[in-house]
Amino acid sequence: MYDVQVVSPLNYFAFTPLLPSVTCGTVEARSIVEPVRNIIKKRKGEIQFWEAECIKLDAKNKQVICRSNINNNLVGNGEFHLEYDYLVMAVGAQVNTFNTPGVLENCYFLKEVEDAQKIRRGVIDCFEKAILPGLTEEERRTNLHFVIVGGGPTGVEFAAELHDYFQEDLVNLYPSVKDLVKITLIQSGDHILNMFDERISSFAEQKFTRDGIDVQTGCRVVSVSDKEISMKMKSKGEVFSIPHGLVVWSTGVGTRPVVKDFMEQIGQGKRRILATDEWLRVKGCEDVYAIGDCATIDQRKIMEDIASIFEAADVDKSGTLTIKEFKDVMDDIIIRYPQVELYLKNQHLGDVTDLFKDSEGNYRPEVDIEQFKLALSHVDSQTKNLPATAQVAAQQGTYLSRCFNRRNECKNNPEGPRRFRGRGHHQFLPFQYKHFGQFAPLGGEQAAAELPGDWVSMGHSTQWLWYSVYASKQVSWRTRVLVVSDWTRRFIFGRDSSGI
Amino acid sequence: MYDVQVVSPLNYFAFTPLLPSVTCGTVEARSIVEPVRNIIKKRKGEIQFWEAECIKLDAKNKQVICRSNINNNLVGNGEFHLEYDYLVMAVGAQVNTFNTPGVLENCYFLKEVEDAQKIRRGVIDCFEKAILPGLTEEERRTNLHFVIVGGGPTGVEFAAELHDYFQEDLVNLYPSVKDLVKITLIQSGDHILNMFDERISSFAEQKFTRDGIDVQTGCRVVSVSDKEISMKMKSKGEVFSIPHGLVVWSTGVGTRPVVKDFMEQIGQGKRRILATDEWLRVKGCEDVYAIGDCATIDQRKIMEDIASIFEAADVDKSGTLTIKEFKDVMDDIIIRYPQVELYLKNQHLGDVTDLFKDSEGNYRPEVDIEQFKLALSHVDSQTKNLPATAQVAAQQGTYLSRCFNRRNECKNNPEGPRRFRGRGHHQFLPFQYKHFGQFAPLGGEQAAAELPGDWVSMGHSTQWLWYSVYASKQVSWRTRVLVVSDWTRRFIFGRDSSGI
Repeated sequence: MYDVQVVSPLNYFAFTPLLPSVTCGTVEARSIVEPVRNIIKKRKGEIQFWEAECIKLDAKNKQVICRSNINNNLVGNGEFHLEYDYLVMAVGAQVNTFNTPGVLENCYFLKEVEDAQKIRRGVIDCFEKAILPGLTEEERRTNLHFVIVGGGPTGVEFAAELHDYFQEDLVNLYPSVKDLVKITLIQSGDHILNMFDERISSFAEQKFTRDGIDVQTGCRVVSVSDKEISMKMKSKGEVFSIPHGLVVWSTGVGTRPVVKDFMEQIGQGKRRILATDEWLRVKGCEDVYAIGDCATIDQRKIMEDIASIFEAADVDKSGTLTIKEFKDVMDDIIIRYPQVELYLKNQHLGDVTDLFKDSEGNYRPEVDIEQFKLALSHVDSQTKNLPATAQVAAQQGTYLSRCFNRRNECKNNPEGPRRFRGRGHHQFLPFQYKHFGQFAPLGGEQAAAELPGDWVSMGHSTQWLWYSVYASKQVSWRTRVLVVSDWTRRFIFGRDSSGI
Repeated sequence: MYDVQVVSPLNYFAFTPLLPSVTCGTVEARSIVEPVRNIIKKRKGEIQFWEAECIKLDAKNKQVICRSNINNNLVGNGEFHLEYDYLVMAVGAQVNTFNTPGVLENCYFLKEVEDAQKIRRGVIDCFEKAILPGLTEEERRTNLHFVIVGGGPTGVEFAAELHDYFQEDLVNLYPSVKDLVKITLIQSGDHILNMFDERISSFAEQKFTRDGIDVQTGCRVVSVSDKEISMKMKSKGEVFSIPHGLVVWSTGVGTRPVVKDFMEQIGQGKRRILATDEWLRVKGCEDVYAIGDCATIDQRKIMEDIASIFEAADVDKSGTLTIKEFKDVMDDIIIRYPQVELYLKNQHLGDVTDLFKDSEGNYRPEVDIEQFKLALSHVDSQTKNLPATAQVAAQQGTYLSRCFNRRNECKNNPEGPRRFRGRGHHQFLPFQYKHFGQFAPLGGEQAAAELPGDWVSMGHSTQWLWYSVYASKQVSWRTRVLVVSDWTRRFIFGRDSSGI
């Protein structure tokens, strides 16, 4: 039985994948949040929650220093510290402006529920201001120019939501300015949604072009002022500025100061993101784990351990590996170094033994260490960082809680792969991410999706799939009912345009 | 056909009678608001809406000076002026602190939707702060002490909502501090709900006592600091202070600066509230009307016109009035001076002719001017100001729009009562308020109500009546559906305690 203490500056858990829907009121902010205390109440055991900001992690003394961020005049010292045996960091990431001047001051973001609420109010403000008497047409156009920086799933979904909001709702309420609205999506890469399959990218680009959304690819934003946004065309190197009414910055993931400070303490000061091993243990620090966007898994390279692997596999100490000897360790290798499986798949190799073929395609009966190195030399290039998505974070959370709950059990009967550089087995299987696919809603009741097994699906039916998947993924029955009734309400009454 | 222009600093209309329900999340803020543009769209004719604050009324040049209150960096001059032929003021009232020090800085209010949202967040903040480690029990108690100033319907309903919120929802989420919560209701009068029937007052007081809500009557608040509230017991004159976590100021109606400035211009500078005549025309200013909480009807006293009435009624110029002569003008008198009817009712006089009785109860055949004055001398004491409720404002709005739409029709065929001090008839009937009763929800699914015909109703069934009346009074079908589904959601899932 663990004594669990949860610290968070927000007393609710937000289902962030629906944040873009909140920006235009398709879904209400409250429908995607569940109070942490509600979630805790349903679990067995002693769990306590404190609404406070974690301001410092003290790895040496194993304690967390917290401060209440309630800013009114309530009495009592809001600062306290908690001691821990095990610490799980799941503080997420913050916006990364890449030090672009003016971004923090002049852009909206899409990280928190409050950000989405601010955008919603901001969009209506733009319309109410643009329609007032006494403005020139140019001024109206400027106020109704919505710029989105970042062509990833969030930026694209927000652009699509915004376009639907205009076309389906606002056009009837602000008829005199309806022809002055413009949406620009700025992407530094050559295509939007470039983490998706090419077919999805081009489908999205075509749909946006038809919708009149201006997609500027190959553009890097160099500064944002209160009135203008300046960018550089990568191809020509020329810098130009356009006036804007509202800019949403939806790109980049940055490390929070408290994590940065912690990294200094544990010797990761030179890294950009906190590193964990494959068991989600923070490197360089005992009993600290990290999941979600605040950390990244530093996958061990197979080439670093190649000599140990060879030695461990070479049971008869002959200095060469037979296919049988190799096969005996292969399962452990694939679990410990998942890049091997990815490599086999990408090279269209049916079986690991194919690695034993020589350049002419014939099986070698035995390989020596140099040949073994050569055969695996390209494997590590397949190592990939996991995306900063809720899907990854949720799986990591589940994985870690399972490990904690099987700690005693697995101490005696380790379930992990064999240790090549030591003895025995690892206590747990390393974390393995299962990609169940990813959606990109594109507006007009259409969506694109990458599904398991390299399936790609696009169009109206995909949007319905999106509805059902997102409804099923809600944290509680309460939010599920709320989200579905929000969608229904939107179908019947449209989106609300009150400036609150 | 009128060219209608609507100016408001908020682009939505809020159904304010449900504001107390928003403070605890029984109803969501968005469920009680309807965008002004939605309301306009459903009406025929040219109506334009501008989201701006009216910063000055210029009665002499017949124009309104407006300024957009959108504070971000959108381009364009947000200041403009509108010229009018007719002006209808419906700007409402602002909070009145009676110059009590510290109220503006340290209290929450309940006038606007945003006020209710702030209270909701504030209540949760108190709980989250009170439960943190390292506070003394005294500090926890202070943070969980909720004070409401004002024992009117709003204050009482809020106290009841808050009590329900604790008992039904928060008690399960914050079990360790549940015994430290205290609600205090401060009322300067001797009873809460003193505008209601006595039976309702005492029912409410008894229910609150059973619920553990501390009702402090006969107490006047003298100052509020960030940590304490000081008050004076009227009976003993002693001043004492109590520490608080949150204070809601729910008493007093004050005049907005723009109205105050306008009153100076038109010679009403010495009054506290803008005065209109019985046709809702602002006194001292042509073509300006005022409805709702921003003005009050200055009912003409019958004694001011008594000589003219006598003269007009005395058709044969005999110097005395016969009963028949009096009866002929009585209908016009009752319409012009509604206090007469109220007087007859309160004196239990069945008929106006009863006024002609002498002290022994016998009818006088005729009365002279002095006897006539005497008979009516107490009538004006029945003149009452209308309450500052949505019910009054809504009826005034309907009345005024009907007048505007019948302007030409009634020019030729005036519908109003006869003019005693001039010739002919008034163009329109004066505004007459119909009181349909008033509710006071008391928590725990109980309510009290004053219904037409001096009926009083209390208990659970009254709460269900409240639900049906409030559902039916919603501005649109959309908000009606939202409010009812919010109630349903509350029954099923309880109230949300997320701090957003």
